[in-house]
Amino acid sequence: MPLSVRECIRELREYIPGKNIEEVVEKYGIPPEKVAKLASNENPIGPSPKAIEAIIRTAGSVHIYPEKGGWKLREAISEYLEVPPETIILGNGVDGVIEGLMKLFIEPGDNVIFPIPTFLGAELLAVASGGRTKYVMRDENFEISPDDIFEAVDERTKMIYLCTPNNPTGNVVEERVARELAEEIDALILLDEAYVEFADSSLLHLIEEYENVVIMRTFSKAFGLAGLRCGYAICSPEIRKEYDKVIPPFDVNRVAIEAAIAALKDKEFIKMVIELVREGREFLRKDVPFKTYPSQANFVFVDVSPFKSSFITEELMKRGIIIRDCSSFTGAKDTHIRITVGKMEDNLRVVEELKKLKESDGFN
Amino acid sequence: MPLSVRECIRELREYIPGKNIEEVVEKYGIPPEKVAKLASNENPIGPSPKAIEAIIRTAGSVHIYPEKGGWKLREAISEYLEVPPETIILGNGVDGVIEGLMKLFIEPGDNVIFPIPTFLGAELLAVASGGRTKYVMRDENFEISPDDIFEAVDERTKMIYLCTPNNPTGNVVEERVARELAEEIDALILLDEAYVEFADSSLLHLIEEYENVVIMRTFSKAFGLAGLRCGYAICSPEIRKEYDKVIPPFDVNRVAIEAAIAALKDKEFIKMVIELVREGREFLRKDVPFKTYPSQANFVFVDVSPFKSSFITEELMKRGIIIRDCSSFTGAKDTHIRITVGKMEDNLRVVEELKKLKESDGFN
Repeated sequence: MPLSVRECIRELREYIPGKNIEEVVEKYGIPPEKVAKLASNENPIGPSPKAIEAIIRTAGSVHIYPEKGGWKLREAISEYLEVPPETIILGNGVDGVIEGLMKLFIEPGDNVIFPIPTFLGAELLAVASGGRTKYVMRDENFEISPDDIFEAVDERTKMIYLCTPNNPTGNVVEERVARELAEEIDALILLDEAYVEFADSSLLHLIEEYENVVIMRTFSKAFGLAGLRCGYAICSPEIRKEYDKVIPPFDVNRVAIEAAIAALKDKEFIKMVIELVREGREFLRKDVPFKTYPSQANFVFVDVSPFKSSFITEELMKRGIIIRDCSSFTGAKDTHIRITVGKMEDNLRVVEELKKLKESDGFN
Repeated sequence: MPLSVRECIRELREYIPGKNIEEVVEKYGIPPEKVAKLASNENPIGPSPKAIEAIIRTAGSVHIYPEKGGWKLREAISEYLEVPPETIILGNGVDGVIEGLMKLFIEPGDNVIFPIPTFLGAELLAVASGGRTKYVMRDENFEISPDDIFEAVDERTKMIYLCTPNNPTGNVVEERVARELAEEIDALILLDEAYVEFADSSLLHLIEEYENVVIMRTFSKAFGLAGLRCGYAICSPEIRKEYDKVIPPFDVNRVAIEAAIAALKDKEFIKMVIELVREGREFLRKDVPFKTYPSQANFVFVDVSPFKSSFITEELMKRGIIIRDCSSFTGAKDTHIRITVGKMEDNLRVVEELKKLKESDGFN
């Protein structure tokens, strides 16, 4: 029966993202302005005023297709990162970049290795592209052991997906580890640096040494443009050339291109966002009344034991605070939550409510 | 060597879209306001003022991810077309919808049948997804013979791609033909109605009768939102459910969702766009001094024999008019061009320049 979908799709589960404000408004009757969304690692301040200006300026010309390939944006990224534009690829969010790379390299039956817990979206994209997922558990501090990865690699391994800082755990891949993997493994080392602007360091310089390393970045986090969908990556010019053939020619929209170019130029704004996030992150790390983990991203990973993550998530939602229950992440525990660093008032609020919940022993 | 790309990708050529205004400005030093872009079948008037308002209103909240799955927009489309929201899928342009459907159904070695000439982008997406293309020539009026298609179908045929009105030829698929194919063939009948708002009729009602029919639509043409990338399709609820698993959760951006909802509501504006296009289309059909074909879309297909399409395209570009050389479309001739219906002043201009070119016998 030709109308049945591919077998790999039938096994696929649906990606459940963090709840949005409308859902909480509807479910609990809380006015939208009272809802704190600390679930999707969005920028707490919003987009740069320069990006907003660019969007407004572009509004009247959205009947025109974007420039094919978005080379104007590649030039701007090239200047920002000091890498040649010929090494930059763009996508409809990092999701789009991952999809494009899967299209390039994954034949049915090939596999991608995921040190878990990690960004669930990437796993689902691998499966939707006909690939298999191979999991390697991180240690108790969520560090990756190269030996565990070497053991998992087989002749069908095409990629190792390494999120750094890692979503949802917040820690980075050590340079030593990334180098060891890039040197020893004949597969693509996908370094997802979506949160790198909040971290102390980047692995970008590795692309000069290893042609199998791809560094993925996004405008969705520090740059505050999640709603516009624009991700990018730095890779070898050979991969770039092939990628440009498989990605639809107008993949990144016109408004995203203009807003991203403007956002890159607003260095003061980005600096302010990063400082605010780092400050809020330290506060959450210190004051959340459960076990928290060190974070280099704009979120903090928390183990709410002895409570269940689903219970804490639901209770906070009743109080107008949306956080992320991480129990659906492969390899996470049912006591793991992730809190996005928000505005200081929201950080205070989530800490206060967690303290109350803990003291009331969960009964309220 | 695991780092080599899939074989299907190596064979793939790059999609070359219509030239943009910047390229002409750069190449010929013509001021941008003097350039008429009649190459990409964009809306000649621009987006609806209501859509522009919606974009401006959304500019400040682009740091927030779009609502997962864009159900608010599906509801609006549901109301507009009077079909259940559970039968609507969204994508990053029609390209995105096609890609998602390919991911659902195409295993390497499966094939998609294309009656040519037709929309080249769809062919490239099929190949990038690991599929093979099978071509069936249209007749001298670009009509499709069901028998030719039946002959091309084999056990690996998963889809028949039918663009209606067809890009670049402008004619529609007759209902009788679509029914015959949907009844006889156990494959997806993809009806790409990107240009249907300019046509006299639609085949939308067929989805109630045939579960293997998918109707694709877009906001890029009559609705004037090409730059925002939003396509959609109407299909069986079963396909919809599987599609929603393979498409990234935030595929359509936040600005596109809001602008599309606003554009759907501005019925007066759409009516005006359609009237203007129909009027301009009749003018081009009548006054272009070469063989033109009947069109139900917002463009006119022209055979510029004895001239070559590349010559005419280049000469018009020197005069600040961008049209589409169709010689790169599989199955088209090297004398075929496509002219997008523009504002009346631009339609007059292209006719005048074509007349001059013809009279000067190509020497200038």
